[in-house]
Amino acid sequence: MANDAWPSPSAAALARVVDRAAIADLVYEYARTMDLNLPSELAALFTEDCVVDYGEGLGGRIDGRAALERFVADSLPNVEATSHHVSNVQVRFEGPAAATGVAYLYAWHRFADERQDATLWGQYHDRFVRTSSGWRIAQRTLRVAGEEAMGFGAWHPIGRRTASRGARSRDE
Amino acid sequence: MANDAWPSPSAAALARVVDRAAIADLVYEYARTMDLNLPSELAALFTEDCVVDYGEGLGGRIDGRAALERFVADSLPNVEATSHHVSNVQVRFEGPAAATGVAYLYAWHRFADERQDATLWGQYHDRFVRTSSGWRIAQRTLRVAGEEAMGFGAWHPIGRRTASRGARSRDE
Amino acid sequence: MANDAWPSPSAAALARVVDRAAIADLVYEYARTMDLNLPSELAALFTEDCVVDYGEGLGGRIDGRAALERFVADSLPNVEATSHHVSNVQVRFEGPAAATGVAYLYAWHRFADERQDATLWGQYHDRFVRTSSGWRIAQRTLRVAGEEAMGFGAWHPIGRRTASRGARSRDE
Repeated sequence: MANDAWPSPSAAALARVVDRAAIADLVYEYARTMDLNLPSELAALFTEDCVVDYGEGLGGRIDGRAALERFVADSLPNVEATSHHVSNVQVRFEGPAAATGVAYLYAWHRFADERQDATLWGQYHDRFVRTSSGWRIAQRTLRVAGEEAMGFGAWHPIGRRTASRGARSRDE
Repeated sequence: MANDAWPSPSAAALARVVDRAAIADLVYEYARTMDLNLPSELAALFTEDCVVDYGEGLGGRIDGRAALERFVADSLPNVEATSHHVSNVQVRFEGPAAATGVAYLYAWHRFADERQDATLWGQYHDRFVRTSSGWRIAQRTLRVAGEEAMGFGAWHPIGRRTASRGARSRDE
Repeated sequence: MANDAWPSPSAAALARVVDRAAIADLVYEYARTMDLNLPSELAALFTEDCVVDYGEGLGGRIDGRAALERFVADSLPNVEATSHHVSNVQVRFEGPAAATGVAYLYAWHRFADERQDATLWGQYHDRFVRTSSGWRIAQRTLRVAGEEAMGFGAWHPIGRRTASRGARSRDE
């Protein structure tokens, strides 16, 4: 390709880059409201009929925005501080009003008691929909590469292929 | 919304997505120049009359670009290496020439002596202005969710709402 | 600058913001395929004649996509899990078909044996080219700010200026 002229992006490519920025902002707003312990503001980022799944160790499938708000309000009473660092935000559009995404999560947790700090390295696997109020999260599944001191298990794995056997985990 | 046609972004939406990328780049350039220990290049990312506040433990309010450059040059003489990982970059425009932002920081520090590595989990709260040379940081406050082995305190908190009392920290 | 009218981005500025998103997605896809242990999908993100260098401790310069695929497949047989958190993605365009970039890496590794978890704080220094199938990585050098328990050395340094002597590392 000639190095002297920029290819003109299509109208759809421009629309997608604007939507991508809005979706990334939505994913970051989730982290911000989580770390400030604002369950209502956090739940408002999801659709009314959202489905969220942090894994069996955190209660399994959560149905709907109201249940999500209660879960966030109740789930971690002993937490003193968290910091959810979200990166690697990838978005795939199914069309102008629906997209899927993967975003990496490095989450740090400090507890009010003597427990050691806990760390989780994982990925959010999301589905986004465009509503009349903007993009919202319709589905979110947390997948986990590893964790330290979180205190419970039964996470959804990220699905790393096993080197020796050439097979992926069944959950993938 | 119909799934078969991309809404055409407005001229302002397109301008904002370009500005957002420039502002994110500015925030990343701060991290890069900090980790390379380049105080002059770092200070050039700020306005002449900038106000920067890393917390009382790091000397409190710093007034102006020249004072910031001296601070960065002098503050951490015993540091051997740092790595400032910045994510969750959120930008809110007040207009075409001013914006505020929050960006997450995971900062790792290694010292020249026997001290253990130190980690900080926090957020930059910024104000950006557009100048004739591009976007610059006019105000930056570091807020801290938690830290380990940093060796001093009196950080600005992120303002996490206390679960049991429903109140936010006074500093928020 | 007046605060009441957005400057209209040029066609080239719009093209660059679309390309920047595509390049960031490429860098994130590298992390995703690495963490899922998908060497063939990972190698497909690079040009046929790519040059990759993770440092002498990891074998030094790797020439070409096929060699990269073998390296990724063979290099870390004892790894049970990794998580490559990539942030601070900066892109500088040389023209419409070539760009350089720096992206920060926080990489976490867990091993199948009793070894402790290993962490690396570093930067990818990349060259990207636009091909008929989209942007690809033509060159990648890993530079390292620090690491813990990785088990080998001889990394390329990030080139931090030494405070006391005012000189940069020779490798920079």
